[in-house]
Amino acid sequence: MCGIVGIVDAGGVSFQLYYALYALQHRGQESAGISTFDGKSLYKHKGQGLVAEVFDEDILRELKGNVGIGHVRYPTTGAKIPENVQPFNFRYKGRDLAIIHNGNLVNTQALRQEYEQRGQIFCTTTDTEIIANIIADELRTSNSMEDAVLLCMRRLVGSYSVVVMLDDTLYAFRDPLGIRPLCVGKTEQGYVIASESVAIDAFGGSFVRDVMPGELIRVNADGLSATRMAVASHTAHCIFEYVYFARADSTMDGTLVYDVRQKIGQKLYESDYLQADIICPVPDSGTAYAAGYAMRSGTPFLEGLMKNRYMGRTFIMPTQAQREQAVRIKLNPIRGNLKDRKVVLVDDSIVRGTTSRRIVDMISEAGADEVHVRVGSPPIIAPCYLGVDMPTRKELIASGKAEEDVRESIAATSLSYIPLDDLVEAIGIDRCNLCTGCLTGHYPLEIQGEKSCRRAITYVDGTYQSDLTLFEAGQGTS
Amino acid sequence: MCGIVGIVDAGGVSFQLYYALYALQHRGQESAGISTFDGKSLYKHKGQGLVAEVFDEDILRELKGNVGIGHVRYPTTGAKIPENVQPFNFRYKGRDLAIIHNGNLVNTQALRQEYEQRGQIFCTTTDTEIIANIIADELRTSNSMEDAVLLCMRRLVGSYSVVVMLDDTLYAFRDPLGIRPLCVGKTEQGYVIASESVAIDAFGGSFVRDVMPGELIRVNADGLSATRMAVASHTAHCIFEYVYFARADSTMDGTLVYDVRQKIGQKLYESDYLQADIICPVPDSGTAYAAGYAMRSGTPFLEGLMKNRYMGRTFIMPTQAQREQAVRIKLNPIRGNLKDRKVVLVDDSIVRGTTSRRIVDMISEAGADEVHVRVGSPPIIAPCYLGVDMPTRKELIASGKAEEDVRESIAATSLSYIPLDDLVEAIGIDRCNLCTGCLTGHYPLEIQGEKSCRRAITYVDGTYQSDLTLFEAGQGTS
Amino acid sequence: MCGIVGIVDAGGVSFQLYYALYALQHRGQESAGISTFDGKSLYKHKGQGLVAEVFDEDILRELKGNVGIGHVRYPTTGAKIPENVQPFNFRYKGRDLAIIHNGNLVNTQALRQEYEQRGQIFCTTTDTEIIANIIADELRTSNSMEDAVLLCMRRLVGSYSVVVMLDDTLYAFRDPLGIRPLCVGKTEQGYVIASESVAIDAFGGSFVRDVMPGELIRVNADGLSATRMAVASHTAHCIFEYVYFARADSTMDGTLVYDVRQKIGQKLYESDYLQADIICPVPDSGTAYAAGYAMRSGTPFLEGLMKNRYMGRTFIMPTQAQREQAVRIKLNPIRGNLKDRKVVLVDDSIVRGTTSRRIVDMISEAGADEVHVRVGSPPIIAPCYLGVDMPTRKELIASGKAEEDVRESIAATSLSYIPLDDLVEAIGIDRCNLCTGCLTGHYPLEIQGEKSCRRAITYVDGTYQSDLTLFEAGQGTS
Amino acid sequence: MCGIVGIVDAGGVSFQLYYALYALQHRGQESAGISTFDGKSLYKHKGQGLVAEVFDEDILRELKGNVGIGHVRYPTTGAKIPENVQPFNFRYKGRDLAIIHNGNLVNTQALRQEYEQRGQIFCTTTDTEIIANIIADELRTSNSMEDAVLLCMRRLVGSYSVVVMLDDTLYAFRDPLGIRPLCVGKTEQGYVIASESVAIDAFGGSFVRDVMPGELIRVNADGLSATRMAVASHTAHCIFEYVYFARADSTMDGTLVYDVRQKIGQKLYESDYLQADIICPVPDSGTAYAAGYAMRSGTPFLEGLMKNRYMGRTFIMPTQAQREQAVRIKLNPIRGNLKDRKVVLVDDSIVRGTTSRRIVDMISEAGADEVHVRVGSPPIIAPCYLGVDMPTRKELIASGKAEEDVRESIAATSLSYIPLDDLVEAIGIDRCNLCTGCLTGHYPLEIQGEKSCRRAITYVDGTYQSDLTLFEAGQGTS
Repeated sequence: MCGIVGIVDAGGVSFQLYYALYALQHRGQESAGISTFDGKSLYKHKGQGLVAEVFDEDILRELKGNVGIGHVRYPTTGAKIPENVQPFNFRYKGRDLAIIHNGNLVNTQALRQEYEQRGQIFCTTTDTEIIANIIADELRTSNSMEDAVLLCMRRLVGSYSVVVMLDDTLYAFRDPLGIRPLCVGKTEQGYVIASESVAIDAFGGSFVRDVMPGELIRVNADGLSATRMAVASHTAHCIFEYVYFARADSTMDGTLVYDVRQKIGQKLYESDYLQADIICPVPDSGTAYAAGYAMRSGTPFLEGLMKNRYMGRTFIMPTQAQREQAVRIKLNPIRGNLKDRKVVLVDDSIVRGTTSRRIVDMISEAGADEVHVRVGSPPIIAPCYLGVDMPTRKELIASGKAEEDVRESIAATSLSYIPLDDLVEAIGIDRCNLCTGCLTGHYPLEIQGEKSCRRAITYVDGTYQSDLTLFEAGQGTS
Repeated sequence: MCGIVGIVDAGGVSFQLYYALYALQHRGQESAGISTFDGKSLYKHKGQGLVAEVFDEDILRELKGNVGIGHVRYPTTGAKIPENVQPFNFRYKGRDLAIIHNGNLVNTQALRQEYEQRGQIFCTTTDTEIIANIIADELRTSNSMEDAVLLCMRRLVGSYSVVVMLDDTLYAFRDPLGIRPLCVGKTEQGYVIASESVAIDAFGGSFVRDVMPGELIRVNADGLSATRMAVASHTAHCIFEYVYFARADSTMDGTLVYDVRQKIGQKLYESDYLQADIICPVPDSGTAYAAGYAMRSGTPFLEGLMKNRYMGRTFIMPTQAQREQAVRIKLNPIRGNLKDRKVVLVDDSIVRGTTSRRIVDMISEAGADEVHVRVGSPPIIAPCYLGVDMPTRKELIASGKAEEDVRESIAATSLSYIPLDDLVEAIGIDRCNLCTGCLTGHYPLEIQGEKSCRRAITYVDGTYQSDLTLFEAGQGTS
Repeated sequence: MCGIVGIVDAGGVSFQLYYALYALQHRGQESAGISTFDGKSLYKHKGQGLVAEVFDEDILRELKGNVGIGHVRYPTTGAKIPENVQPFNFRYKGRDLAIIHNGNLVNTQALRQEYEQRGQIFCTTTDTEIIANIIADELRTSNSMEDAVLLCMRRLVGSYSVVVMLDDTLYAFRDPLGIRPLCVGKTEQGYVIASESVAIDAFGGSFVRDVMPGELIRVNADGLSATRMAVASHTAHCIFEYVYFARADSTMDGTLVYDVRQKIGQKLYESDYLQADIICPVPDSGTAYAAGYAMRSGTPFLEGLMKNRYMGRTFIMPTQAQREQAVRIKLNPIRGNLKDRKVVLVDDSIVRGTTSRRIVDMISEAGADEVHVRVGSPPIIAPCYLGVDMPTRKELIASGKAEEDVRESIAATSLSYIPLDDLVEAIGIDRCNLCTGCLTGHYPLEIQGEKSCRRAITYVDGTYQSDLTLFEAGQGTS
Repeated sequence: MCGIVGIVDAGGVSFQLYYALYALQHRGQESAGISTFDGKSLYKHKGQGLVAEVFDEDILRELKGNVGIGHVRYPTTGAKIPENVQPFNFRYKGRDLAIIHNGNLVNTQALRQEYEQRGQIFCTTTDTEIIANIIADELRTSNSMEDAVLLCMRRLVGSYSVVVMLDDTLYAFRDPLGIRPLCVGKTEQGYVIASESVAIDAFGGSFVRDVMPGELIRVNADGLSATRMAVASHTAHCIFEYVYFARADSTMDGTLVYDVRQKIGQKLYESDYLQADIICPVPDSGTAYAAGYAMRSGTPFLEGLMKNRYMGRTFIMPTQAQREQAVRIKLNPIRGNLKDRKVVLVDDSIVRGTTSRRIVDMISEAGADEVHVRVGSPPIIAPCYLGVDMPTRKELIASGKAEEDVRESIAATSLSYIPLDDLVEAIGIDRCNLCTGCLTGHYPLEIQGEKSCRRAITYVDGTYQSDLTLFEAGQGTS
C-alpha cells in the first residue's frame, strides 16, 4: 500500500507535503519522497525510512516551488530497493515529470514485455515506471496529457490512484472502479489531492470531495478543472480500506471510517447478545470496534492490553523466537483488568492468526476466565491483487478452514466474525460497488486463475465536462 | 524523570536490559545507556536518542557479562550534554563501578561545594556523580558498600532510586521516603531491579515486590539479600506517578496504576452526574480515566481525537507557529463523533493549559455542542523539586487562579478536577504517605523557600534485618 | 573523468573490484558503485563519496558472484545527483544488465531526442543510459550483444570505454579512436578489464595488454575472446592522460606514465639550461617532472612545499576567502629550503592559473630569490569535450594570452612550457595518433563550433577475428 | 602521541583552532576536540575520527568565544574510549576549566592511588584527568594557577606539554626537560600556543619562539606573560620527533625538521659512498632523507614506489592476509623505474621490520638488481615511555639482533643505519640535551626496570623571571 499527495499552493508546498505525508504514514513506512517544481527546475528528495527520518527542515527548505507531490511506500510490487522509492522522476522532451502511484496493476508483465519489445529499458521494477512509459508514449504523438491519461485508463488493468506533475501542473486520476481512495481539498492558496482526508486536515486544509472513479483532476496556478474520462457500470471500492487500512478519522467515498467501525462493533454485539464483564480492544486497530460494541451492549469498555508507544525500529528481532518476544515488549497485559473476568476481545481482522493466538494466550495467562473473540471483518479467504499486502491462501488462517477450527487455533472461548452483509450495511455502500475479493474470492476485474465479475467501462473522452462549479458548490458529483 | 534497571542473570543480561529499557522508555526519551560486567571488564554503550536508536543487535552482543544496569533519561538536573548520559562509569581502586539514578536531590549545591572543597572535580553536572563521590568517599575508609549506601542515605536530601554495579554485584536502594518507585523481580536465572513492573514483564520476568523505602537490595551470582537501612515516620510516594508518569499497566507500591486511573474516572462522574452524549479521552493519557467515567456513567466511550502513531522526531517544529501546527499533525479531531454532541473530555492533568486550550478549540470547531473538561488530578499549583519536570509557578495555569478563570482560559463549557481526597482514596495509600507537593505546596522534606512537613528518619544500620520471608524461600540474605 | 573495472573470477569478485576501484580513485571521487551477478541475481551497491566511504566489508560480502563491474565517478556530464551514480543497472527481457562508462559523448542531445521521439523516457542525465538504450534497441531485434556493440560504435560520437555486464558475461569495448584508456589483465582464476594498469596491480593481477581502439572483449567463465569491430585511420589517445590524469605508475598504450613525465622534466631543463639552487616540485603532481629535471640538470631535488596528507572533506570552505585559506592548510612552504634560493618550481600544467599564483606567492614570501616556473604541458588553450573536466576558454589563463602575460599573472621570475613536439616525443606515440584538442583547438572528431581533423573509421564487423591466442602470447595485437 | 593548540584572539578562535588541528593531524588521528569560552559559558565539541570528520562549519560556528583549545589524539595511555577524547572539561568552584595534554606520565599509578585514597574518582583513564586533579587540589587552597602549575611540575614525572583554559585565560606549560615540543605564535589579534609551528602557519599566524622547558605561558585578552617555573640541568628533547614524528616543515627547538632529515640523508651517503643507479624514498616518510642522499651523491632521485593518496579508512583489513594486501593497494612499485637497477631505498626508521620486508620484496619483484636500504635513525632497541607509541622490545626487530641479521630479515642487499653521533650532529642539539631512550635504553628520568640518567631540576618559583625580551616589544609580562 502507498499514500500519495499533490499540492499546488502559491505559498510553497514542501512543508505542507511533509505534514500530509506524516498523516499518511500508516499507508507506508518503507520509504518516502517529495518532488517539487519552481517554474524552472525540479527538486527532489527521497529515502528509505519514515517521513520524519527522510526529511528535515533544511531538506524541506531546498524543495522549492509552488507545486509538488509526495509519496510514502509500503512495497507491494517491486523489491525494497532504493531505485523503487517514489516519486519516479524523469525528463522527457525538455519537460520535467514526476509520478506517484497507489495501487497495483495486474497486467504489469504484458505491458512491460510490450514496451521492452520496442526497445524500452526499465530502471525500476515498479508499476509506476510502466505508467510513465504509457504517458510518454502518448505525449510523443498527441502532446496532450488528457489523452495520455485516457490511454492509461484504457491500458492499465488494476487499481491506480495516480498524480503526475508535468512541469507546473498536477494531473490526478483514479481508476474507473475507484478501488483505491483519492480526494481533493482546498489549501490556503491552492488545492491538494491526497489518498485520505486526514492528509488535508494535517496542515489545516479543507476537504472538498472524493475524486470520482475514472475522473481526471487538473490543477495549476490558474485553478482546478475536473473531467470524467471513464465510467464503470459499478465501482469497486476496497472494503479493506474501511476495515483496516484507512485511518479511522478519514472520510472516504462519503463515509467516516470511524463510524463504519463503530457500527460494526454494535452489530457484532447484536449477533449473539453475549453478556461479558469487559469489552477489551486489541490496540489500536480494535478500539473503534470495541467502543461500538461496548456502547451497544452496555458492558464497560476497558483496556486489557497496553501498547508500548515507542516503536523505534524492530531491527533487533530477526528470528522467530525474538519476534515472539517482540509481542511482549510491544503489548503487555493489564492483569488487574483481566483476572477472573469474562472478556470480549475485539479486533478488526484475523489474517494469519498467529498474533491473535499470542494475544488470546496472553489474556488467558493474565487470569481471564473466558476470552470471546469478535472480529470486525468476515473471514479473509483469498489474496488481494489490488494493492493490499495479503499473504497467500495457504497462510490465511480462515482459507478453507471451518470457523470452529480457527477458534481452536487461536484458543478462544468463542469466536465470531461480522457477516459480510452487516459489514456492507455498516459501510453504507452497495455491495456491488465494493471490492470484496479477499472475503469472497470474486474480483472486480479479470485476474488469471481467479473468479471475476468484471465491470463494464465506458470511456467518455471527447466530452470533457467542466466540473469546476462542483468545487465551489460543495460535495456534488456528475 | 528517568527509568532505571539492573539485572543479574547467569544467561547474560544485555538483551533483557534492552527489553526492559524499551518498556521504560516513557520515563525518558533523551538518552539511553547500558553498562555490563563479565567478571573481568566493564562494557558500556550510551548515546542520545530512543533506546531503539541507541542500541542495535551488534552493540548488545558486545555488552558481555551476567550483570548489568541500564538507564533512560529525561533530564531534570544537568543540561542535555553527552557527558551526562548515564550510567556514570568509573574505576576506583582497581574496581569497576557504574551508577544509575532516578530522582532529584535538593542539596546538590551544598554537597558539590563540600567535595570541591576537598579538591574533587566534577566531569558531569548530574546528581549521579555526587552520589558516586559519596560512595567513593566511604569505600576509601570502610571499603563497605553497605556503609557507603548508609552514608548516601544520611547525606542525600531528595528523591533517589539508585542502582550501583560494583564489579559483579548490584546494590539497589531507594530513599527512605520512597519517593520514586523501585521494584524487584525474578528472571530465568537471576534477579531484576527496575523502576516499574512493566520492565520486568517486558522480557518475561516475574514481579516479586517493591523495594521498601530506605531498603538496600544486594544481588549477585550467589543470590539476593535485602536490608533495611533507614525507616521514615511516613513515606512520600509521588502522587504524580499514579496520575501521569507511570505506565498504566505497572503495579506500584501495591497498586495497579490503571485501576487508580479508572477509579478516578468513576469518581469524576460521581462529582456531578453530568448527562452527556459521549465520553472522549485525550489520547493516550486520558484513556483509563475516560473508560472509568464511561463505565460509571453508562454514557458511551467514544474517541473524538485520533492520535498519529508515527512520531518520528519533532525536529521540524522549532517555532511557536510550527508547534501549534504540530498539534494538528499529532492529534486530529474525528468530526463525525463530535458534531452536535455534548462531549465530556477527560484528561489526566492540566499543566500549562496551552495544550488543553488547543484541544478544546479543536473539538468545538469540529462541531461539538458542549465540551465538559474533567481532569484526573487536582489543580497543579506548585513546582516539583523531586524529579518531575514541572514548570515554575508562573507557568502553571492553576497556580493562583480560580477554577472559573482556568475554565475560561481553556474555553471549556465546564471544568472540574478530582478533589485531592478522592484521588488519595483511588490510590489507596494514606495521604500522609504520599508526596502531594505539586498539588498542595507542602513538601515532605525541607526545600528552601517552600513549606514542608518533614518526615523523621531513623537509621537502622548495624541492625541488619533479614527480609528473607519477603522473598521466596532459598534466597538467603546477610 | 571516471574509472571503470570489470572482473570475471571463479573465486568471487567484489573484494578485487573494491581494491581496483581504490587504485582508480584518482579518476573520480564523487561517487562509487559495484554491481555483481551470481548466475541468478544481480547485486549492487553504490553511493556518493570515496570508495572507502561507500563500501565496507559487510557490503562487499553481500555483492555475490563471479562476475562484476565497478565505477568511480567525477561527473563531466550529468549533474551530481544520486540517480547518476554508476553502474547503470536495468532488466531487459528477463536479463540483468549493468553498464559503466568512462568518456564523454558529443552527440548526446541528438541521440536523446531520437529515443524520446520513440517514447523512451530517461531516468538519469548520463551518457550511460543512452548507451544502454542503443544496446536494448539492438538486442530487441538481433539479440546479439556483438551487433549491439557495433551499433554503439556506429551511433556514438565521442570518447567511450565501456563495460557491459549481461548476466554472467562481460562485454568491454573502447571507441575506435581509443581516446580513453582501457586494458586487460589476468586474475588468479579469470580476467580483469580496467581503465588503468594500476587497478590490476592493486589486487595482485597481471597486466596483459591494452584493449585496442574499436575492439570488443568478451569474458565469462569460459574464457576471453576479442574481436576488432572498427578500425580508424588514426587513433586519438588523450594526451592529458599522460600529463595529468593517469597515475604515474600506470602503463598506458604501451608507455609507463612516470617515464613520460620524467622525460618531460629532462626536456624542460634542456630548453634553457637554467642554473638554479633547487628543483622543487608542486606536490604531488609535479614530482616526476621535477625528478627528471633534477636528474638532467644535476641541481638538487628539494621539496619547498609540504602537502598535508589528511584531506578529509573540504566542506568547510564554501567561500572564496575560505578557499584561499584552504591552500594554506593543504600546502605549506618549507622556508628553510627556499630562503635566499633560486628556485625552479615544476608542475604538470597550468589551467586557471589561480593556484599557480598562490604557490608562487607562497614561495616568494618564504624568501626565495627567484621562482622559475616550468610546466610539463604546453599552454592549455581550448576546452575538452571528450571527458576531462576543463573550464571554458574564458577561464583558461593561457587562452588568447601571451606567455609573458601569463608569467606576469602568476608572478614568476620566468615561465616556460614544454613545447608540444617535445611532449609528443616524450610520450613516444605519433602526434597524429594523439588527441591534442586542449592544446591546439583541433579535435579528432566533429564538434560543433570547433575545428576538427576527423579520422576515417572502417567497420570490420562480420569478420570476427579470434584474438584468443594474443592473450596467451603476451603483448601482440592484430 | 597527540597534538595540542590553544588560541586567544579577539576575532574568535574556533575556525583558527580547526585549521591548526588540521595541520597537526599527523600527531593523532583517533579523535579530535575543541573547547572554547566566550566570557560566560564553555562550548565544546569532540568526537572520534579525523578533524575534518568531527567538525563541520555549523559546529565551528557554535564554538563561540575569543579563547579556546583543541586536541588531536593518538592514544598512548587510556583505551580508545569516548570518555578519553580531549579536551577534558570540568567545572570547579564556579569556574570552567578545560585541559589538553601531549605526552605520557610514568608515575600515573602512584598519583592515581594517592588521589583515590582521598576519595577522588576518575571518569577517564587518561593522564589528563590526573593533571586536572592536581590543579584542582592546588586551586582549592591557594587559588593560584601559577602555584597549581608549579605543583604539577613537582608532582608529574614524564613528558607533558599542557594547555589549561581557566575561564578566559590560557595557561600553557612544558615539562622541565622539554621532552614534547610546544611553541608560541602571534595571531592577528592575539596569541597561539601549539605543538608544532605548522599549526601556526596553517591559519596565517607567525611563529615567535618555542616554549622553554619548565616555562609557564599565560595568555588572555590583556596579553601574554611568561615565567620560568623550573630549570633542569639538561633538557631531553625527544630525538624521534626529528626523525619521524614531527612534520618536515616544522621548526622545533630552533631547528627546521626537513633540514635535519636532509642532512641525515647526506651523512648516510658519506658513510660508504655507494654508487647506485637511483635513490628511491619510501613515501612519504623517506623523501627528505632521499633528497639529501641524492643531492650529496649526485645519483638521481627517482620514485620507485607510488603511494595511493586516497586513504579513506582501512576498516576493510582486519586480518593479517588483508593487511598484506593493503600494502599493495597503498603502495605500488613503478616497475619501469626499478627494473635492472641498483636501488638505494631510503626510509626514516625500521621498527618491526615487517613493512620494510614487504617493500624490499616488492622492489625486488619489480626487477631491481640490488636493494640497498639506508635508514635515517640508528637501530631502535628499546621502548618509549614518554609518549611515542613504540612496541615492546620483543617486537622491535633491532632489539638484541645483529645488523646483519636484520638485513637478512628484510632481504636487503645491504643495510646501514645512521650512527647516533651523526644523527645528533644533524639535529644540532647536544646529545646530553636529547632523549635517546629508544636508541640507547638510557632514559632521562627514572623508569622502573630501566636505566636512567636523571636530570636535576631546580624549581624557580617565587622568582618569577620576566621573559619579556624574548617576545617582541610591547607584550608585557608579570
